[in-house]
Amino acid sequence: MTATPNIETPALLLNEAVLERNVQRMASRMAEHGVSLRPHIKTVKSAEVWRRALGDPARVTVSTLREAEHAFENGVSDILYAVGMAPTKLDRALALMARGADLTITVDSLDAAQAVAAAGAAAGRMIRALVEVDSDGHRAGVKPSSPEARAIAAALRDGEGASFRGVMTHAGGSYSCASTDEIRHMAERERRAVVETAAMLKEQALPCEIISMGSTPTATFAASFEGVTEVRAGVYMTMDLVMADLGVCGVEDIALSVAASVIGRQETRGQVLIDAGWMAMSRDLGSGAHGYGRVCDADCAPIGDLIVSGANQEHGVVTSSGGEAIDFDAFPVGRMLRVLPNHACATAAQFDAYRVLGRDGDMKDVWPRINGW
Amino acid sequence: MTATPNIETPALLLNEAVLERNVQRMASRMAEHGVSLRPHIKTVKSAEVWRRALGDPARVTVSTLREAEHAFENGVSDILYAVGMAPTKLDRALALMARGADLTITVDSLDAAQAVAAAGAAAGRMIRALVEVDSDGHRAGVKPSSPEARAIAAALRDGEGASFRGVMTHAGGSYSCASTDEIRHMAERERRAVVETAAMLKEQALPCEIISMGSTPTATFAASFEGVTEVRAGVYMTMDLVMADLGVCGVEDIALSVAASVIGRQETRGQVLIDAGWMAMSRDLGSGAHGYGRVCDADCAPIGDLIVSGANQEHGVVTSSGGEAIDFDAFPVGRMLRVLPNHACATAAQFDAYRVLGRDGDMKDVWPRINGW
Repeated sequence: MTATPNIETPALLLNEAVLERNVQRMASRMAEHGVSLRPHIKTVKSAEVWRRALGDPARVTVSTLREAEHAFENGVSDILYAVGMAPTKLDRALALMARGADLTITVDSLDAAQAVAAAGAAAGRMIRALVEVDSDGHRAGVKPSSPEARAIAAALRDGEGASFRGVMTHAGGSYSCASTDEIRHMAERERRAVVETAAMLKEQALPCEIISMGSTPTATFAASFEGVTEVRAGVYMTMDLVMADLGVCGVEDIALSVAASVIGRQETRGQVLIDAGWMAMSRDLGSGAHGYGRVCDADCAPIGDLIVSGANQEHGVVTSSGGEAIDFDAFPVGRMLRVLPNHACATAAQFDAYRVLGRDGDMKDVWPRINGW
Repeated sequence: MTATPNIETPALLLNEAVLERNVQRMASRMAEHGVSLRPHIKTVKSAEVWRRALGDPARVTVSTLREAEHAFENGVSDILYAVGMAPTKLDRALALMARGADLTITVDSLDAAQAVAAAGAAAGRMIRALVEVDSDGHRAGVKPSSPEARAIAAALRDGEGASFRGVMTHAGGSYSCASTDEIRHMAERERRAVVETAAMLKEQALPCEIISMGSTPTATFAASFEGVTEVRAGVYMTMDLVMADLGVCGVEDIALSVAASVIGRQETRGQVLIDAGWMAMSRDLGSGAHGYGRVCDADCAPIGDLIVSGANQEHGVVTSSGGEAIDFDAFPVGRMLRVLPNHACATAAQFDAYRVLGRDGDMKDVWPRINGW
């Protein structure tokens, strides 16, 4: 690949070839296991990106209703909103359903299920819902195979305005695993949490049409998806340093980078200053090993052990993480660098578009993305 | 004030009365000291906000050219771009000058000064520039009264396409001071860094029209602004938990909050889940004392010692920072809460508009803000 074109910085770059390779790798893995993928669009938030990488996906996962509307307006009807429903969002969810979206929402409490059923009944609609199961003590969800799971599923089925569709879980804890073995173990906990809960519910005459698990790490390393109807994953499309640190990908599989310019040097302090501060990189420190990101040359090859060790709003401070001397002659004001992000979801959210690098390294396009709610 | 109206969450709320009080307090302080304020608009990024709070400011500071364009398009001509200039941005800066903006840029190296002069000469314009002075070893700038300061000022004066206007410094280190005395000391270092450098340059026949210092903490606690022509500050308009922790303001002076809804509870773990995760709050952890923010009721009164101790993209995990028991009956699904941000600049940047609460607590308006570069 040739060097990055001379563009105004900071800018969010997306390497199309790497994106496609990541998507194909995950698709192959899902095909081997005979399980469906429901891509999570919370990372890329861009129909332009997923259309190129995925074709027209049959189904997606979203983390906001804005993403749901964006998906529906771009031809995807089967949408899972995988964050516990807040009652103030029900009108908007109903409006999207009225437009024809096959929207499924998520609840993990009886009061949320009752609010959903009441809103559906008032609107004369059946709101389809999953019960969230907690597989790792990390966030939301009821205990697997618990009386609470049964009670919520029953409230959704019995309610006039709701329809019980199944169960879902997310092992967010997989992001802090210390080894791939640990991730594999976490994936099996995730799988069993929903498969066993679904079996319990089936015995109670509450069959699950959807049995959903997933995160990029567990989707990558799970030994089995038996009994699961779909797997959710999002960051696998672009990857990031957190995923590389977990062994989910290599640094060369990271499709996103932030283009930045050298704006100054503090030679006595061993620092190069760039115009990508925390506003461009986000405040996400990932594993803690790379500061605000890893510094690369214009071809996206890491430069020694340089990281963005400090950041102000629009200033990034580049230093050697190991305290090595920097050859300051190699960093004149105006030199373009690229910074790999810790967390693709957080860094991408700081921008409203991707500048797409094609196979020849040329800037081939600008793909807009959505933000907000 | 009455309770927050029932709005879709998460949303960024701005209390207009508190904003106005903060702005008046800083204006009084500057008037007492007989020094001009050059408000930094990198926090609010909204002409709607500063117009209401400041009237039509005579001059502003910006951290991006997008902010500069926004200011110019909203009637402010005297604009200081206070981040070291990257050569790729010079065409855009020249275009803004050609439209009539009195834009002043910043450099801290000879190569940047030369690039600026060359671009100005090529465009047949004089680009006005300040030399950045480093007052606290924190970020950018040359040493006060140094030969480098003199050489850069001379290069700007001698260059065909540049015009030397003066010196500026920013004591970003004031954000990590342990006491108001320490901030006062930092302010005096900041003042002396530019005043003494300007005196040195004057002896070298390089007089400074602008002698600029500032940050909200140093502007608040400085004992003297003698010799300074202007003070820069931005976050004073909205304040935040970082400023409250520094003693710059009280918690009741924070004009910004994020409205969030309860979406679940994990009673055995002592957790309430809300729909404001790091996407709404940002990843900024501020002083480290409040997680992702301090949790308040609908009237913005803090609830015990509740904080957003953990966050996923769209989930916030509320716990007691002191391990106190939570009365879960008080947190039904759908209850609206408000979360005070650690860092106003970072949290506000996650949103594209302010929902403005008027004096009666009613939602009176929506004021758009800009993001990006």
